[in-house]
Amino acid sequence: MRMCDIIRKKRDGGVLSDAEIKWFIKGVKEGSVPDYQISALCMAIYFRGMNIEETTALTLAIRDSGKVLDFSEINGLRVDKHSTGGVGDKTSLVVAPIVASLGVKVAKMSGRGLGHTGGTIDKLEAIPGFCTDIPLDEFKKIVNRVGIAIVGQSEDLAPADGKLYSLRDVTSTVDSMPLIVSSIMGKKLAADDDCIVLDVKTGSGAFMKTLDGSRELAHQMVEIGKRAGKRMCALITDMDRPLGYAIGNSLEVIEAIETLKGNGPADLTELCITLASRMLFLAEKGTLAECEANVKRVIENGEALNTFANMVEAQGGEKSWILDSSKFPKAKYSYTVKAERSGYISSVDTEGYGTSSLLLGAGRNTAEDTIDSAAGIILIKKNGDFVEEGEAIAELFAEKEEYFENAKNKLLASTVIGSTPPCSVPLVLDIVE
Amino acid sequence: MRMCDIIRKKRDGGVLSDAEIKWFIKGVKEGSVPDYQISALCMAIYFRGMNIEETTALTLAIRDSGKVLDFSEINGLRVDKHSTGGVGDKTSLVVAPIVASLGVKVAKMSGRGLGHTGGTIDKLEAIPGFCTDIPLDEFKKIVNRVGIAIVGQSEDLAPADGKLYSLRDVTSTVDSMPLIVSSIMGKKLAADDDCIVLDVKTGSGAFMKTLDGSRELAHQMVEIGKRAGKRMCALITDMDRPLGYAIGNSLEVIEAIETLKGNGPADLTELCITLASRMLFLAEKGTLAECEANVKRVIENGEALNTFANMVEAQGGEKSWILDSSKFPKAKYSYTVKAERSGYISSVDTEGYGTSSLLLGAGRNTAEDTIDSAAGIILIKKNGDFVEEGEAIAELFAEKEEYFENAKNKLLASTVIGSTPPCSVPLVLDIVE
Repeated sequence: MRMCDIIRKKRDGGVLSDAEIKWFIKGVKEGSVPDYQISALCMAIYFRGMNIEETTALTLAIRDSGKVLDFSEINGLRVDKHSTGGVGDKTSLVVAPIVASLGVKVAKMSGRGLGHTGGTIDKLEAIPGFCTDIPLDEFKKIVNRVGIAIVGQSEDLAPADGKLYSLRDVTSTVDSMPLIVSSIMGKKLAADDDCIVLDVKTGSGAFMKTLDGSRELAHQMVEIGKRAGKRMCALITDMDRPLGYAIGNSLEVIEAIETLKGNGPADLTELCITLASRMLFLAEKGTLAECEANVKRVIENGEALNTFANMVEAQGGEKSWILDSSKFPKAKYSYTVKAERSGYISSVDTEGYGTSSLLLGAGRNTAEDTIDSAAGIILIKKNGDFVEEGEAIAELFAEKEEYFENAKNKLLASTVIGSTPPCSVPLVLDIVE
Repeated sequence: MRMCDIIRKKRDGGVLSDAEIKWFIKGVKEGSVPDYQISALCMAIYFRGMNIEETTALTLAIRDSGKVLDFSEINGLRVDKHSTGGVGDKTSLVVAPIVASLGVKVAKMSGRGLGHTGGTIDKLEAIPGFCTDIPLDEFKKIVNRVGIAIVGQSEDLAPADGKLYSLRDVTSTVDSMPLIVSSIMGKKLAADDDCIVLDVKTGSGAFMKTLDGSRELAHQMVEIGKRAGKRMCALITDMDRPLGYAIGNSLEVIEAIETLKGNGPADLTELCITLASRMLFLAEKGTLAECEANVKRVIENGEALNTFANMVEAQGGEKSWILDSSKFPKAKYSYTVKAERSGYISSVDTEGYGTSSLLLGAGRNTAEDTIDSAAGIILIKKNGDFVEEGEAIAELFAEKEEYFENAKNKLLASTVIGSTPPCSVPLVLDIVE
């Protein structure tokens, strides 16, 4: 096989065979296909697309480029939840303990944040002592004992994806449906879960800005997961507004704890209940209504919070901080952002809010940047709220006062204040089963 | 400027600015833009194309990536002829001496052959002693004295093109109109000619297989040459058959000499007269009819051949071989290819004929291959001729007998013998001024 023939075939609108796709990904992994041919093929795929068979083959080849885990030592069904990434999205911290406290195992591998979106691992590392790098055997033991463990994604899972993604990132070939689908699902399928609930974000703060694109992404991921033998479902959820009020690592952990206690913001609570119910429903823990009732029960009776605290303890973290979140240190400086005019917050550029948080030190621009756990934003007003000129709309937190100027400007520039309230949009826009 | 933004802009169908194109080519030349970004942009250009302003900017940037020559020391108008490459195309060896003998200077830089097409420099090197690597000052002196000199293209002309072409070759981005146009014209414009006549080949033996594609290529190259201040014209000529009867380096030199003597094959003679007349016409040496009459005169009176012999002598070659071409050594072995059935040669795959010659040792597969000057093919029958089964259709020449099997099979497979004669197609299909 010759790479230039494969590129030409796709360039001319042909359908790549299973063998060609496997050969390509093997070459990516081993370094025998040079970068300039990889990027040329990615661009040809950008223009020509791939059919579902090609995308499935690409996904499975990416999965098989590294270790494929075996969780058979874990007792009982394992369910995972994956978000395509949003601003203020701390749902994993909430839903994983909920379903674990109801007897479904969560052996979760999560990523770090990059750019305007945060990552679950960064959030958990705001808890002192919490270890996200645990040997596999120990990880499985914790899951069996506590019902849940969350660790960083191992680099030996789907290594071809890392290589492909870093090239796509610098050659403007990120926004290609088959490349997005295979990247997400290639990694997901390398773990050994029975059920996967996807949270596909849509809107200004999401990877996918349009509902149609998000719907197509959800359909393809669900289809490919099913072909790989998983029970699948996907929620399409609104990311034209941040989720909850907290953006930033320890701030989000605290908000997650409040939500586990039943005191969380309405939108975050609603989404967590929906996600957790769907996870339980996929794991055949009753009807959807029964699953939802059980979710509400373990929030009310404290079992979900307790499971979270037990997981933190099992992974070396300070359990006492979970039970008393006032122990999380505050940032050195804070700054109140005030509305520049009166009116309704009619829309926000959610990505801009994420960037504002990044400018405060809560995220990373490049994979090498370090993160300030205490930095971030607490929103005071959100979409639909009425504000008076000069009224506080957000509180910023940072280690250095000099960060506030840019972060404030970004946040204000990302906030549209109008004279009439916006139409209300449901948080869960669609469910793909 | 960021390369990924430029790639994205072209990917999304945008028009690149002059500054963006200059920045890109500077990066190609200096190595600051990595190969994977170059190939991604080439693929985006393949899909999105470029308008004539972009193609012009790309051409000029490629020209300016290296030395741009100054031939002002050469007295009188300088005219060049450039072919997009064909099989059996030895017209440069004929037309350059013709126009030079009529007082128009030819300071020609030519390329070597690659793949199924031959190169003028390889052909000239079949003449013992002939030097194609002459210092620029000496080159200009020869042109002033003899009226003509032909040397290899210096590597410091348009170096960005070499880099781009080698990447395009392995990423299936060769067949892109703006990339082809800018590659050819970027190099051409780095020389300092006043007039350029282009011979755009079309058909099975050409780079461009369709007449529409060739016409578009011709139009764009003529337009860009004019924008760069040159007098331009392009002939579109048929390459669904080899030109003349000889394919291979010394064989083609001998056929060129015969044509300069007025004894050449009809098709080659016709094309050489047309090309030379157009070159003289562009240089304002009279009406087209006057130019054509003059061309025929210098063939008849031997002045054209004499000019060729003088050039060979001035460049260190054996003048006596030009005056007596029987001095060229024959290949060690020859082989007669016979028709496998009776009928008319209704069509040939001209590229296959070029490949057959390559298999005999007359060309190169890679830039490093060496060439056997005596190897090649003398055709006995061509398109439209009637042959009896077992009748000779070609004579093959090679240094090793083992080459004949593959070369014969390739030639026969490239020859279609049918029951009715093909429609006759004119050699010169169109002229773009």
